[in-house]
This record gives sequence, structure tokens and C-alpha cells, in this order.
Amino acid sequence: MILTEDQRALQDVARRFARERLLPDYQKREIEGTMDRALLREMGKLGFLGADSPEELGGLGVDAVTAGLIAEELAYGDFNISALSVATSLNIAILLNHAKPDVIQQAVPKMISGEHIMAICLTEPRGGSDAANLILRARRDGDSYVLNGEKTSITFAGCADIFLVFARTGTPEQGAKGVSAFFVPEGTKGITCTKFNDLGGAISGRGSVFFDDVRVPASCMIGTEGKGFSQVMQGFDYSRALIALQCCGAAQASLDEAWAYAKEREAFGRPIGQFQGVTFPLSEGETHIAAARQLSYHTLSLRDAGLPHTAEAAMVKWLGPRTAFDVIHQCLLTFGHYGWSKDLPHQQRLRDVMGLEIGDGTAGIMKQIIARERIGRAAIAY
Amino acid sequence: MILTEDQRALQDVARRFARERLLPDYQKREIEGTMDRALLREMGKLGFLGADSPEELGGLGVDAVTAGLIAEELAYGDFNISALSVATSLNIAILLNHAKPDVIQQAVPKMISGEHIMAICLTEPRGGSDAANLILRARRDGDSYVLNGEKTSITFAGCADIFLVFARTGTPEQGAKGVSAFFVPEGTKGITCTKFNDLGGAISGRGSVFFDDVRVPASCMIGTEGKGFSQVMQGFDYSRALIALQCCGAAQASLDEAWAYAKEREAFGRPIGQFQGVTFPLSEGETHIAAARQLSYHTLSLRDAGLPHTAEAAMVKWLGPRTAFDVIHQCLLTFGHYGWSKDLPHQQRLRDVMGLEIGDGTAGIMKQIIARERIGRAAIAY
Amino acid sequence: MILTEDQRALQDVARRFARERLLPDYQKREIEGTMDRALLREMGKLGFLGADSPEELGGLGVDAVTAGLIAEELAYGDFNISALSVATSLNIAILLNHAKPDVIQQAVPKMISGEHIMAICLTEPRGGSDAANLILRARRDGDSYVLNGEKTSITFAGCADIFLVFARTGTPEQGAKGVSAFFVPEGTKGITCTKFNDLGGAISGRGSVFFDDVRVPASCMIGTEGKGFSQVMQGFDYSRALIALQCCGAAQASLDEAWAYAKEREAFGRPIGQFQGVTFPLSEGETHIAAARQLSYHTLSLRDAGLPHTAEAAMVKWLGPRTAFDVIHQCLLTFGHYGWSKDLPHQQRLRDVMGLEIGDGTAGIMKQIIARERIGRAAIAY
Amino acid sequence: MILTEDQRALQDVARRFARERLLPDYQKREIEGTMDRALLREMGKLGFLGADSPEELGGLGVDAVTAGLIAEELAYGDFNISALSVATSLNIAILLNHAKPDVIQQAVPKMISGEHIMAICLTEPRGGSDAANLILRARRDGDSYVLNGEKTSITFAGCADIFLVFARTGTPEQGAKGVSAFFVPEGTKGITCTKFNDLGGAISGRGSVFFDDVRVPASCMIGTEGKGFSQVMQGFDYSRALIALQCCGAAQASLDEAWAYAKEREAFGRPIGQFQGVTFPLSEGETHIAAARQLSYHTLSLRDAGLPHTAEAAMVKWLGPRTAFDVIHQCLLTFGHYGWSKDLPHQQRLRDVMGLEIGDGTAGIMKQIIARERIGRAAIAY
Repeated sequence: MILTEDQRALQDVARRFARERLLPDYQKREIEGTMDRALLREMGKLGFLGADSPEELGGLGVDAVTAGLIAEELAYGDFNISALSVATSLNIAILLNHAKPDVIQQAVPKMISGEHIMAICLTEPRGGSDAANLILRARRDGDSYVLNGEKTSITFAGCADIFLVFARTGTPEQGAKGVSAFFVPEGTKGITCTKFNDLGGAISGRGSVFFDDVRVPASCMIGTEGKGFSQVMQGFDYSRALIALQCCGAAQASLDEAWAYAKEREAFGRPIGQFQGVTFPLSEGETHIAAARQLSYHTLSLRDAGLPHTAEAAMVKWLGPRTAFDVIHQCLLTFGHYGWSKDLPHQQRLRDVMGLEIGDGTAGIMKQIIARERIGRAAIAY
Repeated sequence: MILTEDQRALQDVARRFARERLLPDYQKREIEGTMDRALLREMGKLGFLGADSPEELGGLGVDAVTAGLIAEELAYGDFNISALSVATSLNIAILLNHAKPDVIQQAVPKMISGEHIMAICLTEPRGGSDAANLILRARRDGDSYVLNGEKTSITFAGCADIFLVFARTGTPEQGAKGVSAFFVPEGTKGITCTKFNDLGGAISGRGSVFFDDVRVPASCMIGTEGKGFSQVMQGFDYSRALIALQCCGAAQASLDEAWAYAKEREAFGRPIGQFQGVTFPLSEGETHIAAARQLSYHTLSLRDAGLPHTAEAAMVKWLGPRTAFDVIHQCLLTFGHYGWSKDLPHQQRLRDVMGLEIGDGTAGIMKQIIARERIGRAAIAY
Repeated sequence: MILTEDQRALQDVARRFARERLLPDYQKREIEGTMDRALLREMGKLGFLGADSPEELGGLGVDAVTAGLIAEELAYGDFNISALSVATSLNIAILLNHAKPDVIQQAVPKMISGEHIMAICLTEPRGGSDAANLILRARRDGDSYVLNGEKTSITFAGCADIFLVFARTGTPEQGAKGVSAFFVPEGTKGITCTKFNDLGGAISGRGSVFFDDVRVPASCMIGTEGKGFSQVMQGFDYSRALIALQCCGAAQASLDEAWAYAKEREAFGRPIGQFQGVTFPLSEGETHIAAARQLSYHTLSLRDAGLPHTAEAAMVKWLGPRTAFDVIHQCLLTFGHYGWSKDLPHQQRLRDVMGLEIGDGTAGIMKQIIARERIGRAAIAY
Repeated sequence: MILTEDQRALQDVARRFARERLLPDYQKREIEGTMDRALLREMGKLGFLGADSPEELGGLGVDAVTAGLIAEELAYGDFNISALSVATSLNIAILLNHAKPDVIQQAVPKMISGEHIMAICLTEPRGGSDAANLILRARRDGDSYVLNGEKTSITFAGCADIFLVFARTGTPEQGAKGVSAFFVPEGTKGITCTKFNDLGGAISGRGSVFFDDVRVPASCMIGTEGKGFSQVMQGFDYSRALIALQCCGAAQASLDEAWAYAKEREAFGRPIGQFQGVTFPLSEGETHIAAARQLSYHTLSLRDAGLPHTAEAAMVKWLGPRTAFDVIHQCLLTFGHYGWSKDLPHQQRLRDVMGLEIGDGTAGIMKQIIARERIGRAAIAY
């Protein structure tokens, strides 16, 4: 896909920002382990959060492809910062599609400015991500709903200011159809968060969120009562393509560094780039990332054109993280033991990317979606 | 890449033609083992040969992406027929860039109409494709050149009417710089061809071409004397992307057939599509082909935009054939023993595609090109 | 595994025979397309058919590992001839375990001498290999059974003299428990065979076998009435390991030829063996084949020790053919276009080996067996 | 390979020890980051360090295969503890082959008892592992040698009591032939160590070792003056096979845990083991590890039989770590996000194993060795 001038212009801004402002402290931020709020506000000013939102809400009004370009470039510098940008695009798209105007006005501009981080709370300790088995309860009480229960494996649990929570408003027998979604505004009482001890994604702080008599106005319901799950889930085709581009960005950073090393590092009296055993795996990595990237752009341009892209989004959601993992691993090995030390960023990229091999839908779920898109119910055993 | 309406229109025509006219006799044509000239002329009328040529020469004047779409669709029906269409696009592009107007007027319209097939004669028995070592001699004699020598591993040797021949006009010491290219018109005397016994590509007839005092007018020289090799070779970035799309088309045909089979075929009392062991490899195949396809479109759109695309062309030239080979293999296995019989086309596609894992540049050469594009001379040991 | 002197001695004999007598005509035999009976009798004299049978029946009384060594060496020379040797070992083992003494005396010595070829007839047109759905009927009639029905996808259909047939003696409702096995002696009337048009295995002649009032003595029942299926199937762990070694032998032949070529063939003024892009894939192939080989030997030595080896047999049954396919493909590519021509044996090995990626249990079934061996019924959805 | 009763007996002891004593604290030891000396002495008493050493020195006198079994079992419980056991076997073998009797008597029993850890000091900051370029100097001074210089990337730098150091006794022009090896006894003055910040192998403490006027008796020279490098390096075929088994042990632990999880964990109302998308990758992992394991046993049994095994050792040295890495990665993913948390050991195994994809010879060097073993000098470009 040939980018437009506008797309390239914003790509350039993101690229410079990622390389100058993000990359140098990528590893430092992991050690600190907290989301850098000043950095987020800086990104907000540059338009890197929710760039695809309408200008009247503070966004740049760019298309999905451009949002993907930004995610890709940011991830070149810091995979986890990029993840927040991707989540912001997803979260805003959900609110714009399903929230009441008041909620939109209240929540979106502060996400765009980098002031507020939103966490989507779906998974529960027992029921997993299977909406039919969710237990967390939202009880109607006058003009409010009162939420009680526990969510787990929630990305940004460690730093979120606002929440989108799936809760059961109907009976257990109603399965997924008894589930509604709620926006929980900043400062709402009764919420406690814990943070998991993960291999990567330190600043995103995956963890559990406990809701103890958490009261939200009835107008905070997102979508229709009892339909929250399916409505919100439709948005994920978008973030799947953005995630894939995040992964391409991180892998490209490792590739660029590995090529530079292959050019300079000498062994046996010559640059190691003269050994095909060194360069061919890198050439293969370049190819695989380039292909995953173009398929991701294509997915987003289908979205921009208003065309179906569920199969394509599922494809890149598994291909992107998997390819990036393998390519970064190969780049790490190119550096020998030096690549295995924490002095270089490859090992952190490897650990961070692995989280998105799992999060937002495993490879298995994606392959099942692709099969379903091809042969319908004949692909579904359960 | 979102196709334009014009691109989709021509894609549709090619799709229908490939599925209705080509696919049913794909295997029959192999058994017959000869190029079906009537079919070629039919394709010529539809504009499928050299569609990217100027209208004044008989082409449709479409862009490179559209030429790729045609190659992809044709290969869905018949890989070898598509190969001829790809070769025609390449050959015409070379002539348009480097031949004298008379040669263009004489040769191009008949290639577009399907009347004439051109074979590029580079490789020699001893020297391989290494231009520096070519031996076949072109001796100046008045207003003519007289060619003597042997070429081998020439695609379309078995059916070519006209030839583009690399011959030494200088001394052996001049290496590649002593080599010029010549157009050999139809009916020229002194040419004998043999056909190899290949695993695939039966109708293309790879073989040897012997030149025995073959006299061509001096005006038939293509490009500048002593520069023929490097000038002509520049054209190959184009055919590399087209070849990749050929491979995607053939693999997509096998994928579509395998999905249909997974939907209908029952085992253990249910459609085999319910077994993830059956569908996941197909979902992976869909993904890999979709990614290779988009990178190929991207390569061609770079060409259309006048941008460099040597690295991208090298990427898809190895990725396309390799991926197609693996995917077709998997599709064949999906059918069990039935897929292994010659009653189904998978085994022929496998054999045909394998020829382009090698032809027009092996995977090794492509990976070397990618490395050179990334780190320049540091990647070259020799 | 360190081989014993006896094992090495027989390996040496088989090796010499394979390279001197089999390899030179491997491709010629495919063109002729029939099983060379004189060659079989010659092999019978050397002990290569049923070598693991008791000496009193004409065998050499060797262990399973040695039978594997013979299969591996023979496949170096001719994959299909080796397949017959593997089938003979399997068939004899089944008869020795389950047939009445008379049948053993009648059938086994002639299989060992190379006079008779036996085909196992399980699969049916509709029911596949699912014993529960077999339709072919064996009706008791006095001291005989009368068989009527059709079998398909039967290896050696094109050349078999004797048959082992699974037939329904009970009711359809009894499923697999209503199935018995029968030996059908040479010269029995009412049998017609057809041969499929397969991509490989020409001399083995996979095809259909039609039984039209075929009468066999009741004493020809193999195993217990209604238990034939499960009893006979137990034997397949053995042939799975032998098949894997067949595949290793064929791949090793291609590897040896590719290394020799890498040593001799020059490009860019040096042996292509100096390019790691050429040698590394071969080094990887050597490794993968060496590992598959040792796991196959291990499987057979478990059998020799009377230890369970179902999981190991399933492992090598999918790993061996798959690895061999990939390695042979790589070796073929090492030769460039020359490897793609039918002048070299790689393409035939590729086609022949592919048949055993499917035959005697697909990769999918093997992986399901491994899972079942590890977690039992929790692995079974159906 | 069928193990002997003695082999199985010791395997059982190591297995119980690994699962009961090592596995529970595998992760805790990483956090502590130091070698647990009490644990080593406990292992010494059980014979797990240098088990293959002669009984008169304190060893068990077992064969190489048994040493491999112990390494494999220990790695099931703790990859890094196993690494120390492997290093001890290698180090003792080197001393037994090349050291003077006094050195052997002084060093070996304390390594076997777990009292002393030895570090092999080869790599230097500038020269890498290329012996021809080593700079660290050993100057003869009466009955002593005085060592001055720096070594880097030294495994066990963080915990070693004794050292084997490669130093230049000749001139730079002599290249590798000017290098000798020295044993540095406990308590020798002038040695300083630093520890790197690695992704794994925390307790092994890779780092730099600085030698500042380090004086050792002349009798501490290992091997012949000027031949130390080639003599000592011969020992590495041994440790390569042991390392491969280490990796198999670690991967098997992850596989066992993943199978157990697949059996118990439910999703969509059934054990996830019923989804082939979950089990097939595990079945494939079982197969690949089983094959790598048998090839490793084979390599060690070749050593026990006094047969050449350089190619086989190179094969398993790249195959073992690579396969283990991929399999552990897959097992981690089987657990979803739970596997990505540091609560489970998969992520640590992944990080630890990665160190041995590099250490003791990269995959590239191994593939080069295999090629050289097959076609000799034709494989060497440099």
C-alpha cells in the first residue's frame, strides 16, 4: 500500500518521537514499572492517543491506517507505550459506537489528552472470557447500578483511571445475553486493583480488579442491556490489526539493530554480514515482517472502506505477534551472548511481544475465527 | 490494498475465464504437453497477454497491479498458462525499454495477440547464469550479427517463436561487460530446440536452444552493445512480483477446494471441518497466502508509483513460491490418499509451483539481494 | 543406538544390494510401473523379505531393529521396493499372531521367498477406515465364508496374490465388534482389482479390490470372530516404525547426493559448499533425519524388549515421512532446475514418500494417538 | 536406546531428587541469584557431580550415557543446577586427559564433592573465542607463570573457585599455536570477577574475569605448551551432548505440566485437551523432544564405544536447545496469560534455555561443523 502524503507526514512525526523520546528509555521504564503520565500527556499533545477520534473531541480525525502507522512507529520505540495507544483507539471506538453522549464527552477527551487510562474488564477468575459464564453482578438500584464481583487478567489494572466492565444484569440462565457493559467514571468508590508479576508489559500492569458495591449512574450503561457483550466485541477486529502492527514495529527495531551489527561486527577477519548463515535468517525475517505489515495495512484499509475484515483481522492477530516473536528471537541470537544480556532491548521485546501472542485472543481462537469465516458452522464443534 | 473499480472489473473477467475456461482442463493440458495456441489467441483477444502494454500496441494500458491480478487469477485455473502471461509482460517491458522501434512494432503486437511466444535465452551449459562466463558468440558481419552456441534451461524452448538471446560481442576478458542482447525474429534459420523431461511445467517446455549460424539484423540488438545484461536484468523485479502472485493464485485454488472438502467430507460422524487438526493448518495457509499476496500487490504498486522495489520483489519471489508449495502440500494432505492421486489438481500444482521456487532466481539469490539492499557490500563475500 | 555386529553385518549386505541393484533402476521401475517379481525372489533369497520371521518358516529370525535397518537401506535404493519389505514384515507378524497354523504354513514361506504379495484390505468407499462402518459382508456358508463387497485405497491392489480382508460377520449395529478378518489364499476366485493413477508408488499399485462371491474356508479367519479389527490393528505399531526408517533411508540418499553436488559444483568461482546458504539447510536436514532415525530405532528396540511403544510408533510415523518430505524437497532445490528434472531421483522420492505421509495413518491420527497416550480420554472429543 | 538396569537405577535417583528437591525452588533460586553451595554438596554426596569420574577420585565411574541421564533429570528440576553438573563432567574430563596428576588430585575430588566450581576462561573482549587472536598473557617466571589480562562472557564467573585459563605463551604471530591452558588453584591471588545482567542463568553468573599478576606453578599447565587450545577443545563434543539432554529435560518438564493442564482445565464446557488445536502442538513437541533425546543418547553411546561423534554432537547441540526453546514457548502459550506470569516456571525455562542456544557454540558454528564433517574443506570459505 502506497501511503498518502498525510499518512507519511504523521508516520514521520511518530517515527522521530519513537526513536528520540521512547527508544532510549524503553528498558528504563520497565525497571521503574509504572506508566509515565507526563510522557502520556506529551503524546496526547502530539495526537498519538486516539488520533483516529473526531477533531471535536480532541482527536486528529485520521483514518484507521494512520492509527496503525502510529502504533507501529511507537512500538519501534516502546512496545508497551504503543499498547496504550492501541487500547485508547479501541476504547474510544467502543464508546463512540455504544456510549451515551454524556459519557463520550466525559471520557473521550481525557483519554485523548493522555490524562485518563481505561481498562476493559471482561475476564473472571472462574469463567474466563466466556461471556456466558460471567458472574460479576450489576444490580439495578434506582437510577444506578451497583457492581459487585471480581475481574482478573485485566490489562492496565495497575494504572487505569476509568473502566469498562462487563457485568451480569440478567440471570445466569441467560448466558451471554444476560450481560451488559458499564462505564465506570474516574473517582468511583469501591474499586481495588492488584498487579500480576508478569514476564513483560511491566508498565501496563495486568492484574485483578475488585468491585465492592461500586455504584454507577444508569446512564453509564454501554450499549443495550443484555447485548453489551456482542456489541462491544465487534470492536476487536480493529485492535487486532493495530496489535499486529505494534508487533511489526518492535520486530523491525530488532531487525534494524541486527543488520547494523552484521555490518559492523567482525569475526574471522570479516564482517559477519558476509556469512549467509547470519544474513539469510535476517532476510527471511525482513520478508515475514514486511508481509505481515502489508496484510495489517490491508485489514485497516478494509475498515476504512467500510468493508468486512473479520477474517483478515484474525489472520494478522496471530501472524503478527508470532512472526515478531520468532524474528526478535533470531535477532537476539545474531548478537550472541551479548543479545542475551539485559543490556540490549531484544530480550525485553521478546517478553513484551509474547504477552500479545495471548492477550486479546490467542492464536487458537484466531484460527477458529478464520475457519468459521470460511466454512461457517461446519467449523464449529462446540 | 483496496482495488480500484477498474482493477476489480478486470480481475472479475480474469477470474471467470480462469475458472470456466482454464481450470477444467488444467490437467488435460499437462497430459497433452503442448501449448494450446488457440487458447492463447483467445486470451489475447481478452487482453490477458501484456495487458500492461500501451493501447497503441494492442495492450490494455493497465498498471502493474492489474497485471498482477490477472496473473493471479489465471494461475487459479492453470499455473502454466499464467506463467506465459507473466513472461509476456516481462518480455514486452524489456523490449519497450531497450529495443529499437522497429523491433517493438514487429514483436510486441503479436505477443499481445497470443500469436508469438518469446523465450529469453540466458543460461549456458557450462557458465550457468553467470553473465561473466557466457560463451555463445555474436559475430558482427556487415549489417548483421551471426550467433553460434548453445543455451540451456530455457523456459518456453519447446514452443517459442521468437527469442531474446544474450551473446558475447566482446572478449571473454570483458566478462559481463562483453555481453549484448539480441532479438531473434520469427522464422530465423539455424535454431534447434530440445525439451527437458521436467517434473512440471509440461506445456512451457523448458529445454535447450542451439544456435547454428543464426543471422539477425544489427538493428535487433536490444539495449547498448556490451550493456545488454545489466539493462535487461533490471526488468526482473517486475516479473518476480508477478510470479509471486501466480503462486498465490494456485495456492488459493487448493485452499478453496480443501475448505469445501472440509465442509462436506464426514468422518467419525461429523464434517472433518470440526476437527481443529484439519482446519487450523488451512487457517494458517490462508493467512500466509494473504500476507504474501498483499506484499506482492505492494511491490507492484511501488513500481506503479515509480518507487524502488528491488528488496520487496526479492522478498516475494522467494516467499510466494515457498509458501504456495507448503500450502498446496497441506491441502493435498487434507484430502488423504485421494489428494495424492492424479485425479485431483493439487499434485500438479505442487509440481508446477516447484519450478518457480527455482526459475528466475532461487530463494538463496533472493535472500542475498535482500541482504545487499540492507547492508550493501558488507553482505557480499564474493 | 550402537548396533551389534550381527546387525551391522546384515545392514552392510542390504546397503550394498540397495546401492548396486536397486538404486540404478529406481526410476526405470516407476516407468515400467509393475512389481519386478524376479527382483523380489532375488531379495527373498537374500533374506530381505520377512527377515524377522522364524528360521523354520524361511526367515532369518532377526530382531525388529534389524528389520528396520533392512527397510532403511532398501529405501536408499528404492522406496517402493522397501515398502514391500515393510509390508511383508507387518503381514507376517499379523499372521503369526492371529492365523491358524495351516494358514501360516501356507502363506508365510511364500511371502518370505518373494513369491507372494499380500494386500491388507480395510478401507471401503463409503466407510473409510472406520471399522464401525464397514459394509463388506462375510456370510457363513457351511465350512466356508462367502465375501461380497468392495474395498478401496488398497496398497498392492495392483500386484497382490493373497489378501487379508476385513469383513462384517455381525450386524451393522455391532459396529467394529461385528468385524472379522479373513485370509484369502492365492487363486481364489471372484476377485477383481483396479489400479489408481497415483502421484507415486507406481509399482505398488494402490487401487480397489472387488469381492464377488469370494469363498474362503472358515479356517481362514484371522483372529477371533468379531475381534479381527482390534487384534490386527495392534500390529501397526510395528510397521509405523519401519515406515519411518524407510523415509529416513530415502532422505539420506538425497542428502548424500546433495552433499556430493555441493562439493563438486562450482558457482562464482568456488564450490557451492562454501556458501552457508547452501550447506546450512543440508546440515539441518542431516540433523533432523538423524534424530528421526534414532527415535525409530528406539521404537523398534522397545518392541524387541517387549515394552510398550505405541506413542513412540505414532511419533515416528508422522515425523519420519514429514521430515523426509521436507529434506528431499530441500535437496532437490540444492540442484536448481536440474533437480526438478526427472533425470534425478529426488522428485520421485518426494512423490513416493508423500504417499506414506498419508498411508497407514495420517499425521493427524498419529498426533491424536500421542495425546491419548498422554492424557487418556480427556484427549478424545468424539 | 534401552537403558540398562544400572542406568535406570541412577536415573530414578536423579529423577526423584530433581522433582522433590530442585523443582520446588527453581524460581526461588533465580530470585536469590546465587549458587546454593549446600545444595551442591548434597548433590556431590549423591554422586550427581562428575558421576562419570573414576571411583578412586570420588566419582561413580558411570558411562557417558548415564552422565547424560543425570543431566537430563536434573534439568527437569532446575536447568541451571544441571548446567553446573554438565560443566563439572566436562571440566573433569579435560583435567583427566591433559592435567598433571597433582592437579588432578588437587582439583577433581573437590569438584565431585560440590566444594569447588571451575570456570573455563576462553573468550576475550576483543578477540572473542577465536584462539588465534587471544591476548591474555602468561609469562614464564622461574617455576611459575604469571597471567595478566581480561576474559569475558565466562560462565560461572560469579561463583567459580578455580579456573582453567587460556593464555598466550607464544607470540601473537603464532596464532592459536601460541596458546596454552592453565589451571588456577583455589585461593590464587589477583583475580577479580564481575557478573553480567543476563536474561537467564542467574545463579551461574556469566561475567568477566580479570587477571592481575596471577601467579600459578608451571605444573599447572594443562596439556602441552602451545597446544592447549586444540587439546582442550576436543572435550567439547562431550558437553554438547550433555547440554542437549539438559534442554530435553527442561522441555519435558514443561510438556508434562502442559499435558496435565490440558487434562484438567476446562473451557466451553470440556477439558481443553479435547481441542486438537491444543493437543496437536503438544504431540508435536513430545515427538521433537523424544527424537532429540534419542539422538543425544546415541551421541553419548558413540563416545562410550570410543567411536567418532563430532557430527552427532554438533547436531544435538543446535537441535536440543532450539527444540526446547520452541517447545517450552508452546507450553507456555498453552496456559494462556497464566503461563506468561512469573508464577509458572515456563518463562524461566525459556530464558535459561536460550542461554545455551548461544553458549558453548552457536547453531551456526554447529551447522558449519556438520558440513565440514560431510564434505571437508569444500565447506570452508574462510
